[in-house]
This record gives sequence, C-alpha cells and structure tokens, in this order.
Amino acid sequence: MNKRLEVIGISGIPVIKPGDSLGKIIVDAVTKSGLTIEDRDVILVTQVVVSKAEGRVYRLSDFKPSQEALRISAITGKDPRHVEAILQEAVRIVRMRGEVIITETRHGLICANSGVDLSNVGEGMVALLPVDPDRSAENIRREIGTLTGKKVAVIITDSHGRPFRRGAVNIAIGCSGIEPIWDRRGERDLYGRTLRSKQICIADELASAAELVMGQADEGVPVAIIRGYSYRVSEDGARKIVRPAEEDLFR
Amino acid sequence: MNKRLEVIGISGIPVIKPGDSLGKIIVDAVTKSGLTIEDRDVILVTQVVVSKAEGRVYRLSDFKPSQEALRISAITGKDPRHVEAILQEAVRIVRMRGEVIITETRHGLICANSGVDLSNVGEGMVALLPVDPDRSAENIRREIGTLTGKKVAVIITDSHGRPFRRGAVNIAIGCSGIEPIWDRRGERDLYGRTLRSKQICIADELASAAELVMGQADEGVPVAIIRGYSYRVSEDGARKIVRPAEEDLFR
Repeated sequence: MNKRLEVIGISGIPVIKPGDSLGKIIVDAVTKSGLTIEDRDVILVTQVVVSKAEGRVYRLSDFKPSQEALRISAITGKDPRHVEAILQEAVRIVRMRGEVIITETRHGLICANSGVDLSNVGEGMVALLPVDPDRSAENIRREIGTLTGKKVAVIITDSHGRPFRRGAVNIAIGCSGIEPIWDRRGERDLYGRTLRSKQICIADELASAAELVMGQADEGVPVAIIRGYSYRVSEDGARKIVRPAEEDLFR
Repeated sequence: MNKRLEVIGISGIPVIKPGDSLGKIIVDAVTKSGLTIEDRDVILVTQVVVSKAEGRVYRLSDFKPSQEALRISAITGKDPRHVEAILQEAVRIVRMRGEVIITETRHGLICANSGVDLSNVGEGMVALLPVDPDRSAENIRREIGTLTGKKVAVIITDSHGRPFRRGAVNIAIGCSGIEPIWDRRGERDLYGRTLRSKQICIADELASAAELVMGQADEGVPVAIIRGYSYRVSEDGARKIVRPAEEDLFR
C-alpha cells in the first residue's frame, strides 16, 4: 500500500479587507472550485491574508521613528519608519549585517524584519504578523467547522530564511487542531534500536508542502488544502515549535 | 484552476545491500505498486538507503578513537568510536553541549553528528552520509532514465534539526535534474512592487513534503514520488543550497 496525499492550491480568494471572515471566504472559494472540505483536511493559510483580515496592515507613516530606529536606518539603509515597525514587533535584535535585520518577535520567531513585510500590501503600506497566529488559526478552524460541520486542522504559514542554507522555506507560525511535532522518541527502528532524537516538525513540513502549490501571494493562491495526511488532533499551537533560548545553541 | 500535486510513498523497497542499483530497485517497486514513473516526476530517496547501496555502512569497531575523540566522548557520553566517525566526517565542530555535537560536514551541511547515524543499520553498525549526494542523485536519475525513458528529478533527503525551532525537518542533501532554489528576485508583487529577497528553497520544501508519506525508514517507505509539481530542470546540485560561511550570520 502506498501512502498518498494531495496538496491542492485554492484559487479565487478575493483581496482581503479588515474584518473579513477568512473561514467563510475559504469555504466559498473551495466550493466555487468544485471541491468540498472534508474531515481531517489540513487547511493552510498564508500569513499576509490573515494579517489583512485582522487589520494588521498599517501606513508606514503611522510609525514615528525613534532615535534607535533612525540609528539602525542609517546603518541598514532601510526606511526609518519600516525600522520602527520592525523594532515595535521585536523583543530583541538577534543579528544585523548589511541591510539585513534578524529579530526575535514577540511570538518567539527568529526571522528577518520581525516578519514586517512591504510586499503584497500596496505602496506606503506595511503588514505586521498576526498578534497571535495560533488564535488566528483557531478562529478560522472554528468558522470552517461551523459552516461545514467538518473537523479540520488549520496552519498559518510564512516564508522564512534560515541559518546555513540559502532560500526561504514556508513554516508554520500558527496552528490549531493538529499536534505540530510528531514525537517519536522511544519508538524502535528496523533493528529494534530505540530512536534517540526523533521529533519531526510536521507542521513545518506541511507548510513547506503547501508552498509548492501556493506559488506566492502575487499569483493569488494564499490557501492550500492537504488531504490524506494522518495527524494527531491537539490543542497545542505553533508556539510549541519555538525552541526556548536555554535549549538553543545558536542565539 | 487549482494547482494540485500528489505525494506518493513507495513501499516494497527491499533491504538494501552494498552495490545495489537503487534506480532499478525504485523502478521495480513503483511497477509492483501498480504505478508507472512519469516525465517530470520528482523522486525522493532517504539518505540511509543511498548510504547502504554505496557501501557507507561500517562497523563501529572500524573506527579507532583518536585522543580528540576520547576527549569528546568523555564530555558528551557518546561511544568514542561513534565520535571518531563523526570527527572523520567533519571539517569542524560548530557547537557542542550536553550530548549534542553539531558539526560542519565535508558537504557543507551543518547538522548533528555529521549525519553519522546509528539508527536503521543494526547493532554495532554506523551509516555515514553518501560521499557526494549530488552524484548519488545523478546516478539514480540516470538509471531511472535508462530503464524507463522518462525524464525525472531525484532528491536525496535527510532529516535535520535546525536552530530556533523544535523538531527536525527533511531537507535535500543532494539533487539532480532540478533547480533547487527558485529565484524570484526582480519579480513583482500584486501591487507592482519588486520582490526583494524571494529565493525559495523548493528542494527542501519537496523533501519536507516527502517525509509526510515516508513516515521514517522503519516503516519501510524510503522513497516517495511527487507528481504534478512544475520545476526548472538544472544540473545544479544541492551544494548550491549551502550558504557560504561569509554570507552566514549564525556560524
């Protein structure tokens, strides 16, 4: 028996406005595509549409640069208002070089620019990450459940660079209804040897799989469904993926 | 139109011995599953079966611990012969804490234990990474091409931990016939704004997607096919994914 799963990009999602119900919009787009949402589907949603729905898109001019922002702007060449937004979203700066600013966000994510993005929001605008992406995922999951009667999992994704390797990959910044890490410690290998350190971050792997069909927001495919993947239901969020500083060897 | 792809786990791969032709074994297993390999399929193969086919499985007792290995064994509590194998595969130690040894391998990978694995190879044995995983991928691709007449891409995968985030994810340590990084710099977003730093490591995303059906070697699904993904053919290997030290902010 082959294990088989499908990754399906959902097109036809309209431009999202503050206050929009993403759950309803997703269900409508799926229906219009001639599909139906099924129990155990994993629904993956790009961060930028969540930020838009939650009113996390601001004018750059809303950010008044602090002395610190002006200083960093001079070093990095970034717009000082952009730097101010980045600093407001950060708990600390992790690395800075050239025009790159790596920060730790309030969610514990370590990423470029605190995830504050100038792309896909229009000139002079800036999108901040959702305040609580696990909560965002939970809300969408609840809306989809109410509208369809189906039990699904929801993952909010964002594309992040990483140390050591070129190119960004899509990761899970929020999730609901799925255990994000598959903990296989204690299981045994082919030869009966106990697996030592086998924790697999399936939420990130699902997010990466989804990006293969999303093809970026500018092609208008901000939502994907992964169907056929067997996962463990859990109320743990993607917060659980964040490695605490004291366990981390690279901060 | 929804973009849709399939991720198919290929079971029925026998236990691999040194000298085995993986290309032939994969084609046989696919055929036995009632499937056929198609043009543009991406074939993903777990590292451990490649290492086995290439004779990269050794007895632990083949490794005579150096003074350095004994010293690190005393610190980490690891078998000194295992440490010796790790050191022989490494160009340097990147981090060490508790029983964890993070090294840079000769391939430029930064990972635990130089990828030297005691799992899935039997008691007293140890599997080293393929000497040149890009070459391994190329060989498998050529064999599959010869046997089937189909043009495919091949990715050799391994599951690696990473900084900042809990849980390992499957990544591409070798590839052939596919451009591993999708370089979108210069493209424009929804609002005509140039995308700034959009390089997506699709080889790693494909590897992560594959792990969702591979379910680890101990379930005997060391090979997956991803079908329906549109990629650019290239002779670049996964070497290209390795970020040079001078570009890296975290070494």
